[in-house]
Amino acid sequence: MAPTPVLLDCDPGHDDMVAILLAAGSPAIDLLAITTVGGNGPLEQTTRNALLTCTLAGIRDVPVAAGCASPLVGPALSAPEVHGESTMDGSDLGEPDVTPVDAHAVEVMAELLAAATEPVTLVATGPLTNVALLLRRHSRAVAALREVVVMGGSTGAGNYAPLAEFNVMVDPEAAHVLFTSGLPVTMCGLDVTHQALATDAVLAGLSALGTPLARTVVELLGFFADRYLDLWGFPAAPVHDPVAVARVIAPEVVRCVEANVVVELAGTFTRGATVVDRFGVTGRAANAQVALELDAPAFWALVTDAVAALG
Amino acid sequence: MAPTPVLLDCDPGHDDMVAILLAAGSPAIDLLAITTVGGNGPLEQTTRNALLTCTLAGIRDVPVAAGCASPLVGPALSAPEVHGESTMDGSDLGEPDVTPVDAHAVEVMAELLAAATEPVTLVATGPLTNVALLLRRHSRAVAALREVVVMGGSTGAGNYAPLAEFNVMVDPEAAHVLFTSGLPVTMCGLDVTHQALATDAVLAGLSALGTPLARTVVELLGFFADRYLDLWGFPAAPVHDPVAVARVIAPEVVRCVEANVVVELAGTFTRGATVVDRFGVTGRAANAQVALELDAPAFWALVTDAVAALG
Amino acid sequence: MAPTPVLLDCDPGHDDMVAILLAAGSPAIDLLAITTVGGNGPLEQTTRNALLTCTLAGIRDVPVAAGCASPLVGPALSAPEVHGESTMDGSDLGEPDVTPVDAHAVEVMAELLAAATEPVTLVATGPLTNVALLLRRHSRAVAALREVVVMGGSTGAGNYAPLAEFNVMVDPEAAHVLFTSGLPVTMCGLDVTHQALATDAVLAGLSALGTPLARTVVELLGFFADRYLDLWGFPAAPVHDPVAVARVIAPEVVRCVEANVVVELAGTFTRGATVVDRFGVTGRAANAQVALELDAPAFWALVTDAVAALG
Amino acid sequence: MAPTPVLLDCDPGHDDMVAILLAAGSPAIDLLAITTVGGNGPLEQTTRNALLTCTLAGIRDVPVAAGCASPLVGPALSAPEVHGESTMDGSDLGEPDVTPVDAHAVEVMAELLAAATEPVTLVATGPLTNVALLLRRHSRAVAALREVVVMGGSTGAGNYAPLAEFNVMVDPEAAHVLFTSGLPVTMCGLDVTHQALATDAVLAGLSALGTPLARTVVELLGFFADRYLDLWGFPAAPVHDPVAVARVIAPEVVRCVEANVVVELAGTFTRGATVVDRFGVTGRAANAQVALELDAPAFWALVTDAVAALG
Repeated sequence: MAPTPVLLDCDPGHDDMVAILLAAGSPAIDLLAITTVGGNGPLEQTTRNALLTCTLAGIRDVPVAAGCASPLVGPALSAPEVHGESTMDGSDLGEPDVTPVDAHAVEVMAELLAAATEPVTLVATGPLTNVALLLRRHSRAVAALREVVVMGGSTGAGNYAPLAEFNVMVDPEAAHVLFTSGLPVTMCGLDVTHQALATDAVLAGLSALGTPLARTVVELLGFFADRYLDLWGFPAAPVHDPVAVARVIAPEVVRCVEANVVVELAGTFTRGATVVDRFGVTGRAANAQVALELDAPAFWALVTDAVAALG
Repeated sequence: MAPTPVLLDCDPGHDDMVAILLAAGSPAIDLLAITTVGGNGPLEQTTRNALLTCTLAGIRDVPVAAGCASPLVGPALSAPEVHGESTMDGSDLGEPDVTPVDAHAVEVMAELLAAATEPVTLVATGPLTNVALLLRRHSRAVAALREVVVMGGSTGAGNYAPLAEFNVMVDPEAAHVLFTSGLPVTMCGLDVTHQALATDAVLAGLSALGTPLARTVVELLGFFADRYLDLWGFPAAPVHDPVAVARVIAPEVVRCVEANVVVELAGTFTRGATVVDRFGVTGRAANAQVALELDAPAFWALVTDAVAALG
Repeated sequence: MAPTPVLLDCDPGHDDMVAILLAAGSPAIDLLAITTVGGNGPLEQTTRNALLTCTLAGIRDVPVAAGCASPLVGPALSAPEVHGESTMDGSDLGEPDVTPVDAHAVEVMAELLAAATEPVTLVATGPLTNVALLLRRHSRAVAALREVVVMGGSTGAGNYAPLAEFNVMVDPEAAHVLFTSGLPVTMCGLDVTHQALATDAVLAGLSALGTPLARTVVELLGFFADRYLDLWGFPAAPVHDPVAVARVIAPEVVRCVEANVVVELAGTFTRGATVVDRFGVTGRAANAQVALELDAPAFWALVTDAVAALG
Repeated sequence: MAPTPVLLDCDPGHDDMVAILLAAGSPAIDLLAITTVGGNGPLEQTTRNALLTCTLAGIRDVPVAAGCASPLVGPALSAPEVHGESTMDGSDLGEPDVTPVDAHAVEVMAELLAAATEPVTLVATGPLTNVALLLRRHSRAVAALREVVVMGGSTGAGNYAPLAEFNVMVDPEAAHVLFTSGLPVTMCGLDVTHQALATDAVLAGLSALGTPLARTVVELLGFFADRYLDLWGFPAAPVHDPVAVARVIAPEVVRCVEANVVVELAGTFTRGATVVDRFGVTGRAANAQVALELDAPAFWALVTDAVAALG
């Protein structure tokens, strides 16, 4: 089977790095571009971390483009408590030797879509600001999208707020634009990404690869695990973002149900909550695939294979 | 140990009936009054169902008083899909031979509190309209309250809305009045009440009592189980309301954590959500005990013993 | 014509004092009770100021009862910038020689309504907390109300917030309860009360009465005028509250239009705004008389005559 | 004095047409581009009406570019009740002989700003969708803006909703983006545009020009006046949009005060209200010039001269 053409929009961040590695290292994906957005950290840092990831992993043929620094409507919000000062603390990563293209992320996405000869999958693992601008500004190019797979949201409890997940909370209006777009959307939220735990066995498997890249990934995930233990008492780090990539590579690894999802834009305490109508109590029509269950061993096998493939 | 004086404010409803039976049949509780509120059904029906419960169980020395028919601020909302046309369908219950007192529920509560010689526990298993009026109108009497134990809310997914539980959703402002009152509040939400499943073994244990009351309870819970299976796919009926009573009788049966709880009053899709800050991400001070775990066998033993005690 | 029986619920406050004087001094009104609520100042002060007003004006046969100290749902809010430290600064008022009745305002209102032999008009010139509790708690007594005339709201610009008037802003939920009650409601908002200016000519007319009461009123309005000049640049003090009383005495003095009024409960910046659909753009049915135009000379003649009548 | 370079973003519409004529016909303005947005009508119609206006007025050297068809976040909303089926009913306008450029409005604005050798004034007389996308997507180009002058908002009563003006109500989030941008913003709202009445004398003055263009304008304003009379009882048509252009040509014609303006995004009944803190009651810093008073004769002289100049 031909690899799926993928645009990856992200805000690295530890788990975004793993998402990039999975997308770039999997034979099932043809990675067209890596675009960055402000989220886990400021845009300069998330872009730098994307470039560092490409440098470390030898990803040299994929354009990297910086996009929006701040959300569509609300104020910027970042997560240094989770990702550290550099937004990807935990290992000495040196300097990037890859440079970004001199065009805005949204323009890069629009041009690649306009040029696409087959439907393209957009994977978004950060706040959805770039995605929303693409939808609003380049409505024709969007027709080339096959689907949008998102890491974000939750069917219940959140992380950065009691009922909101970070990516959606940072830019709820952008998420609203996507969920009301009519495009096929898959939401890989905390329900499933909290099952993507980098357990000791997982880390041992990565370490056993013996490559410098694997070592760096293990170091970074060690930092990440410490933060999750401190902040939320997790026994191991939930590595959220590659779950959305895994869904593209092997849909059966991420079990989904169809449901209606709306984003709360107006609540005093719930702004950014994804309101998922799992039991059809609202009467609103389904507009998304909502991921609920992860085949964790299969998921980690995909990740480990990709890291191995990148050498 | 002397029994705990309890005011029980409820909207029967199948599970409220079990809450009444548990409160009236437990030697650990001195049930001062049963007050009713519109909620699961209209006030006339919830009051009638309270009277029917007293009739069936031979509860004759506890005053029953009707309170508010509709919420503090928003419109009324009821749950016939769950409780049927009579708000307690499933068994032929006949006519009540107990009559309510001729005073408003809030007045009855205020007078009992004013007359109390020791702190009183208020258990509320319906919308909190009566409770809020008591707090706002009789601020002095409220000083006699030891604590308020509520069946309501959730730390994540809801039932009548994706993120809201029925009792809080019906009267969010009343819940807000309680959670901002400074009183000790225990919230027994869906997290714990969905563990109070009337399994076949539980129903068999009740049936084995062999009393007409036990038979009626089992019949009613059969209806209730069918509704939960149809609407939300539950394998057995979650009998919510008596969990709050059990917490008073044997606190260790309902494991709680301290947390801040606020009620969303303003969301477009989340009005009535209880926003529980389990991990301290909001910086708001704890104002409630939030129940998370039920010792289900111990809980059902309490219920079964109470039904047995009522004969 | 027989005088109209009136309940006056207020939060004195300079302009509430004038409302009391107008209600007590007008032969067209049979003042049944003066009830107080927290608003312009804390409940203790508004009650004391009601008692002081009765003392100064020789009002001895009208029961005064204190009601709610804080709003139905939201936090308390007062207006010391406008009314000073005592909530009625500006004159040495001495001590009251009238005492309040030992019952809650809401109970006093409910009992007077239950005993009424003809329909009663409720005039409310403070936050509507007592009124909302009356409606929610004593739904039967409310049937004895002919209408509710309110000082509060605005069709556009506000005072305490850019789009909200103080009384409604303090307790928006209570105002919502009234406007959705189905009762005949007349809203005398800033549109009309800003026409009730105590100009030099008005003050000269009051001074010319030569009574101690008139002198005190003029002194108090002098303080009030200074505050309005400082805060909002008014050339003379708008004496809001007696406008609602004047509407009862002589409806033609306060020209109204029928319109739909809803209260914004949820806005980030507009909570407490009265949304008045003057031109029928919302499709919502009219539920209130909205006062737009004041016959100021006739209004001040009523006030001056009442002050004169009180001696 | 050199003419001011101006970008005019609009949604013609009757009054937008007059705004185009004023901008194109005034020697004080160098009109760089006319960009269109969905608002008074669908984008195809507003673009067509812009092209028709250019055709009728002989405006052939100004690029016209179509922009966003729908708002940044919320659903589209148009005003056929005011502008008729074509969004500019009332005269037989034929077919346009001008064609739009083949680039998105936002791109055209960004390129003109990037190429600008002196600061540019952006005048926006429709929903602010294009403006918000420009700010979010082309943050660098925005540095070339001197100021943004907007027709929209109100300090009190609205038109399409009791407290919201149409342009801001259609895209409140876009307005929020502008008012929080830090750019110098002038808001010409209903306060001042309701003073821009096309009275009989004004229409007579235009008719006296005797040109086909003047005749067409008078015909269109006749239709517009009928709609305003029917819907809101106006005695003459308020010609909103050219007021924003007049402010650029002759600032003294539109008297402004500095104030804080925030846009209500969350209200149940007030979404889209511009909350203008005229009296500093909120403590928020001023972020806009808010127009309050129009020198109507001077304004209409500018309009009439421009129509005359276009021949």
